[in-house]
Amino acid sequence: MFFELQHTAHGGKARAGRFTTGHGAVETPIFMPVGTAATVKGIFHRDLAEDAGAGIILANTYHLYLRPGTGVLEEAGGVHRFSSWERPMLTDSGGFQVFSLADCRKITEEGGRFASHIDGSKHLFTPENVIDTQRSIGADIMMAFDECPPGTADREYAARSLELTNRWLERCFVQYERTSSKYGYKQSLFPIVQGVTYPDLREKSAEFVQQFPADGFAIGGLAVGEPAEDMYRMIEVVNAVLPTDRPRYLMGVGTPENILEAIERGVDMFDCVMPTRNGRNGMLFSTEGVINIRNEKWRTDFSPLDPAGVSFVDKTYTKAYLRHLTISGEMLAAQIASLHNVAFYLWLVGEARRNILADTFAEWKPRILEKITRRL
Amino acid sequence: MFFELQHTAHGGKARAGRFTTGHGAVETPIFMPVGTAATVKGIFHRDLAEDAGAGIILANTYHLYLRPGTGVLEEAGGVHRFSSWERPMLTDSGGFQVFSLADCRKITEEGGRFASHIDGSKHLFTPENVIDTQRSIGADIMMAFDECPPGTADREYAARSLELTNRWLERCFVQYERTSSKYGYKQSLFPIVQGVTYPDLREKSAEFVQQFPADGFAIGGLAVGEPAEDMYRMIEVVNAVLPTDRPRYLMGVGTPENILEAIERGVDMFDCVMPTRNGRNGMLFSTEGVINIRNEKWRTDFSPLDPAGVSFVDKTYTKAYLRHLTISGEMLAAQIASLHNVAFYLWLVGEARRNILADTFAEWKPRILEKITRRL
Repeated sequence: MFFELQHTAHGGKARAGRFTTGHGAVETPIFMPVGTAATVKGIFHRDLAEDAGAGIILANTYHLYLRPGTGVLEEAGGVHRFSSWERPMLTDSGGFQVFSLADCRKITEEGGRFASHIDGSKHLFTPENVIDTQRSIGADIMMAFDECPPGTADREYAARSLELTNRWLERCFVQYERTSSKYGYKQSLFPIVQGVTYPDLREKSAEFVQQFPADGFAIGGLAVGEPAEDMYRMIEVVNAVLPTDRPRYLMGVGTPENILEAIERGVDMFDCVMPTRNGRNGMLFSTEGVINIRNEKWRTDFSPLDPAGVSFVDKTYTKAYLRHLTISGEMLAAQIASLHNVAFYLWLVGEARRNILADTFAEWKPRILEKITRRL
Repeated sequence: MFFELQHTAHGGKARAGRFTTGHGAVETPIFMPVGTAATVKGIFHRDLAEDAGAGIILANTYHLYLRPGTGVLEEAGGVHRFSSWERPMLTDSGGFQVFSLADCRKITEEGGRFASHIDGSKHLFTPENVIDTQRSIGADIMMAFDECPPGTADREYAARSLELTNRWLERCFVQYERTSSKYGYKQSLFPIVQGVTYPDLREKSAEFVQQFPADGFAIGGLAVGEPAEDMYRMIEVVNAVLPTDRPRYLMGVGTPENILEAIERGVDMFDCVMPTRNGRNGMLFSTEGVINIRNEKWRTDFSPLDPAGVSFVDKTYTKAYLRHLTISGEMLAAQIASLHNVAFYLWLVGEARRNILADTFAEWKPRILEKITRRL
């Protein structure tokens, strides 16, 4: 069994569980730091695992396909060996990047044609070759290739797009069954529920994906500009249809608040660039509230970064010192803030899990949100 | 006693010693990683101390004076507390930066006027206020304020410049005696020997500096473009005059070869941006030779970065992975290469020390140089 549902919050939908891969087990709810090019930007793998406590990270098929390429990854024996990350990994399918990052993209029944954002070279992603690429990368969890319509797509576009995504999903699973792992451990394949913000499309999609022998299901196409309330409503619609015995992964989400709201609605897995990207820009999430470290008010604040924080940087470095590094454009600033933020996100989902298991999630959630969403 | 000379290589001039500061002892020969703005670029203080084994680091008075400023440093209780570096620190005087980095500099008897490279604001460094600034910073070793003539200076300029540096040195020591440490531990003041590449000027300078009650002496104005042989000759001239009972610090030097040649000529202390700056550019010093990690030849080289290296990154990461990170512009590349290179430099001076103590330095030096200067 891939997933074990350990507990559902009393009178609610928040869940604590555990899934097991060839690189170890992961306790849910879980946040996956984003390691786009097989590196979570600015963080040594050692610190990611041992200091921040990351149990699983995400990498991007689109980026790894372009650089270093599947040839190098195969010679290395897969992405774990290539990057020296020994815990579980998940790869997205590249669908989102083709639509958001690549140039000159063109979608047809066959797949998505695009020009590399690096050198303009032309490529075609199909459901089949995206599975092949993910076999070469070798992540423990692979994602299906989907079309990602914009959050503003009208109903007709959304419906047509979902039909294409569904046909691609069938082709993904055919290719998945036809191929096997190259490195001796199992690779799971998660379908992605789409449907923009149309409840009936979301419902249909959540029903459709269940025909496949999947170890888990993802909810895609949210947090792309729509109001948070719409996102929460879509999660409710989808999770009412998805089976309870497999994990649900909300892709690309989000703020600490988004994550707790989604956990409350029965989501188990998350990924987002926010902790690292915002960290590089001098924004820190902390147990006391949100910090813009560039602010003049921290100039002579020699208190620890986050007195109740779990990362070693939280007690080693002061706000005044991090402000100095940030203002001075020193790369150590990005390193400290990235590690801190990732550790904070992992602490937060860990606390959510503890409170779910203790049946205190419903009381804990508003209390912690009031604290951590304050602007300091 | 500040310095203890423990051993001089049999039949040579290479020395092993130990000096003691308010933040602990340092064994020489030693390399001081450069922490310009109170951060060795790209390296956590924890890794600098515990992984690379740095015993002392350098910071720049010029940079700290401009940012965060002496007010912040005083409120913090000095640079150690400000930056959370608990081991010894040395600050240069800012003289070299005024001449190499600042705009619109103008040297008079009074001092050096310059415009900040950050915001163009106007400032004046004098021997007196540079001592005051270094008192506010609070490094264990402070440097005298000197004029730094270009390596191509003619004899007349060099002689006039040395006279000015000497008058400034007197003023530095007057101010040094007139002031005291702000943070409860001793601060030493090192004079700087100048004289470009004119042996008689270097000799005069090395004699002149001895009238001051200094804990150590620096050799400045070398490695500024002159042939390495000229630098080595100047070191010989100066070290023949300097007393043997205090440490000699060769400022801003250099390559691994420069350092071993200088150690052989009786130098005890070094600093240089080379390990971090070259690291950020993808150049690695290693126990097997010099690596340009961007080179195509490392694309599928899955051997450890430096199998005999002492840093944790050396065995954790492969050459192929570091090449991928470097080519992809990932900041983790700079972090890995910087920590590796600093650890390598510290390993090298540590090996030099062990060989001096074992009276094997003369045989060891050419053997190790042959190995580590190869281009891989």
